[in-house]
Amino acid sequence: MKPVKVGLLGLGTVGTGVVRLVEGHQEDLKSQVGSSIVIEKILVQNKAKQRALHIDADKLTEDPWDIIRDPEIDVVVEVMGGIADTKQYILEALSRGKHVVTANKDLMALHGPEIIAAARANQCDVLYEASVAGGIPIIRTLIEGFSSDRITKIMGIVNGTTNFILTKMSNEGASYGDVLKEAQQLGYAESDPTSDVEGLDAARKMTILSTLGFRANVALEDVSVKGISSVSQDDIAYAKRLGYELKLLGIAERQDDYISVSVEPTMVKLSHPIASVNGVFNAVYVYGEAVGETMFYGAGAGELPTATSVVADLVAVVKNLKLGVNGKQGVTAYKEKKLKTDEQISAKYFLLLHVADRAGVLARITQVFAEHEVSLQSVLQQPNPHNPEAEIIVITHDANKAAMNKVLRAFESLDVIRQVKSVYRVEG
Amino acid sequence: MKPVKVGLLGLGTVGTGVVRLVEGHQEDLKSQVGSSIVIEKILVQNKAKQRALHIDADKLTEDPWDIIRDPEIDVVVEVMGGIADTKQYILEALSRGKHVVTANKDLMALHGPEIIAAARANQCDVLYEASVAGGIPIIRTLIEGFSSDRITKIMGIVNGTTNFILTKMSNEGASYGDVLKEAQQLGYAESDPTSDVEGLDAARKMTILSTLGFRANVALEDVSVKGISSVSQDDIAYAKRLGYELKLLGIAERQDDYISVSVEPTMVKLSHPIASVNGVFNAVYVYGEAVGETMFYGAGAGELPTATSVVADLVAVVKNLKLGVNGKQGVTAYKEKKLKTDEQISAKYFLLLHVADRAGVLARITQVFAEHEVSLQSVLQQPNPHNPEAEIIVITHDANKAAMNKVLRAFESLDVIRQVKSVYRVEG
Repeated sequence: MKPVKVGLLGLGTVGTGVVRLVEGHQEDLKSQVGSSIVIEKILVQNKAKQRALHIDADKLTEDPWDIIRDPEIDVVVEVMGGIADTKQYILEALSRGKHVVTANKDLMALHGPEIIAAARANQCDVLYEASVAGGIPIIRTLIEGFSSDRITKIMGIVNGTTNFILTKMSNEGASYGDVLKEAQQLGYAESDPTSDVEGLDAARKMTILSTLGFRANVALEDVSVKGISSVSQDDIAYAKRLGYELKLLGIAERQDDYISVSVEPTMVKLSHPIASVNGVFNAVYVYGEAVGETMFYGAGAGELPTATSVVADLVAVVKNLKLGVNGKQGVTAYKEKKLKTDEQISAKYFLLLHVADRAGVLARITQVFAEHEVSLQSVLQQPNPHNPEAEIIVITHDANKAAMNKVLRAFESLDVIRQVKSVYRVEG
Repeated sequence: MKPVKVGLLGLGTVGTGVVRLVEGHQEDLKSQVGSSIVIEKILVQNKAKQRALHIDADKLTEDPWDIIRDPEIDVVVEVMGGIADTKQYILEALSRGKHVVTANKDLMALHGPEIIAAARANQCDVLYEASVAGGIPIIRTLIEGFSSDRITKIMGIVNGTTNFILTKMSNEGASYGDVLKEAQQLGYAESDPTSDVEGLDAARKMTILSTLGFRANVALEDVSVKGISSVSQDDIAYAKRLGYELKLLGIAERQDDYISVSVEPTMVKLSHPIASVNGVFNAVYVYGEAVGETMFYGAGAGELPTATSVVADLVAVVKNLKLGVNGKQGVTAYKEKKLKTDEQISAKYFLLLHVADRAGVLARITQVFAEHEVSLQSVLQQPNPHNPEAEIIVITHDANKAAMNKVLRAFESLDVIRQVKSVYRVEG
């Protein structure tokens, strides 16, 4: 079989890793797929730039169409990022019969169904394992490993930046602002950290995971999103004291074909496997009706871990090429999407309330919960040396989100409550 | 596409789960594979037996050849267990062009290469995801997810019975004998527990995992095996005090294409992800040169978790049938197997020594380590209220196994040592 020719769009961190793996593991790859894989052309922003990796200058191009329109290129590997232009390149590559491997979560979260349809129409593969959770092969797992099961819950720590921040805050008692600065210095957070810390990056990944897990096209706007920028050291200290870790979780749930997807800081019981996922690591917890609890853990980002997933996809494309079955194995989102209403979403909640320090306060607060039929698992009232007001911590039993919203609205006009300091979902 | 007809060999726990999943998820399966999957015939030991599941009597047979020789059967699903007879059925089924899905770890560990070769020769699929770690899709992950990487280490908690026993001993301070009895009452351990507690079951699974991970045919006799039947409550108490959990780990390692595979009780540092895998759960930790640390966690046994993997394989066979590519996607063990010598195996060790309680003992012991160039990470000498002799605990730095064996032999003739109470490998 003749060599398979790859055009690489982008030579940043992941692109460099792809070149290293394809070149460094050439013999192993050839033993598996039966032909060599050659990176023929690479799109870069500036051909003259000095690079750590030696690459023949005549392989580099600054014009994406040099790659997209090259009839010799069999597979386009897209690791440049971006949305509008990149989508155009990918659709054009597919229309010319080129297979596509992409690490682009933004593109797949926003335009996944369109791109997958275009690939099918052109009998091409489009694979995107690297778009979620870096080196963890979670997309394959959802498509193939659990093809026989009905997944009812996916919980993911799918953003390493926020998990690094929350882990540091928890382990070292540091403040959000200080740890964010450290993360920026270490290169774990961008200079504008909004997409990570406000949960948008995680929401995109949860769009992809829930679409695959529930086999219905979940859109980014279906995901309810809350970030970690208002998490305080107090919240984390309380979490620890009560036996929880605060984690930014993507949570996708299904009951009777009704689904909900959110990203939110969540109190996770220490005994839950996802509670001990620390630092920049990612993990995806999957609950299936038949398989029960499972969890998949690994590096969520980085040059080589992410490149591992990109090149595994490339191997899959080449195997399909050899068998002549490209474009025929994608998963279809064959189910109609039905979103849960707030009345259908059920969860436990943690509340930290700052209240007036006088008799009868607890009675008035618990009455509000009772009126809205939210029952309580535990209540803790105690002085806080940093706070002249009294503090009450409540953890509810499972309550529907609509009822919880009514409780919170009622609290706004309850004079004994000075401030609803924090509200978090509870898992585990 | 016409219905795919399945012959099921065995209707025990897993077989019952397979029937439940295939029948209960018929619509979902059809949406994925484009045809219905029908369980046409089922091999049972006794047709007259009462069953929890309603099954048409005319589907049951007591003669395996009824299934193997039925030209209508497309796929044979083997969940009956056993080795010699079962192998004969599977080879005959393959020779008649039937695809095979099996959950049989014993068969695949002992005769995997022969069965895989027979499948290839007949252009048939043979898939065996359920043979290791029940519902965890670890075989797919090693074949496809990490196709681009070089795996250097696989550590598995792949036997739920022993993990249940060690977890109980650790959490409740119970003795090995008492917990084994409880495990037998709960149905987690067989009345003859040898295969589980002596590590043989885990060794078979490690044979399969290391063959896939290292792409070289590892044989069962290549695995060095030690079980948990001599683990004492003292060992576990010391482990905890020093920040470790004692786990029965399968450990497969590769360096420069030289490999070693063992199953042994191992002290795992609490910060290692595999240390917190408790009870009957399984987990497989995989380290790849590029991807780094990953771990895959879930139920290792049970009716529905194991059936999830069997039916996922069945879905894969049916997809291949539809594409006409059966028998073409198996992984080949294309590397020559080279086993490490004891000089090449390097690990940390924990030793618990009962020694004479007099001056100079520690000096003489540490001198033996020094003579064999084993350097020490920590040494702890202390009284034990249950033991009139003194106790010394040593944890070494990385040492080669040959040197450690020399140390242990030297200890046999060292008069100050009353007994080498325990020796365990240390990880994490």
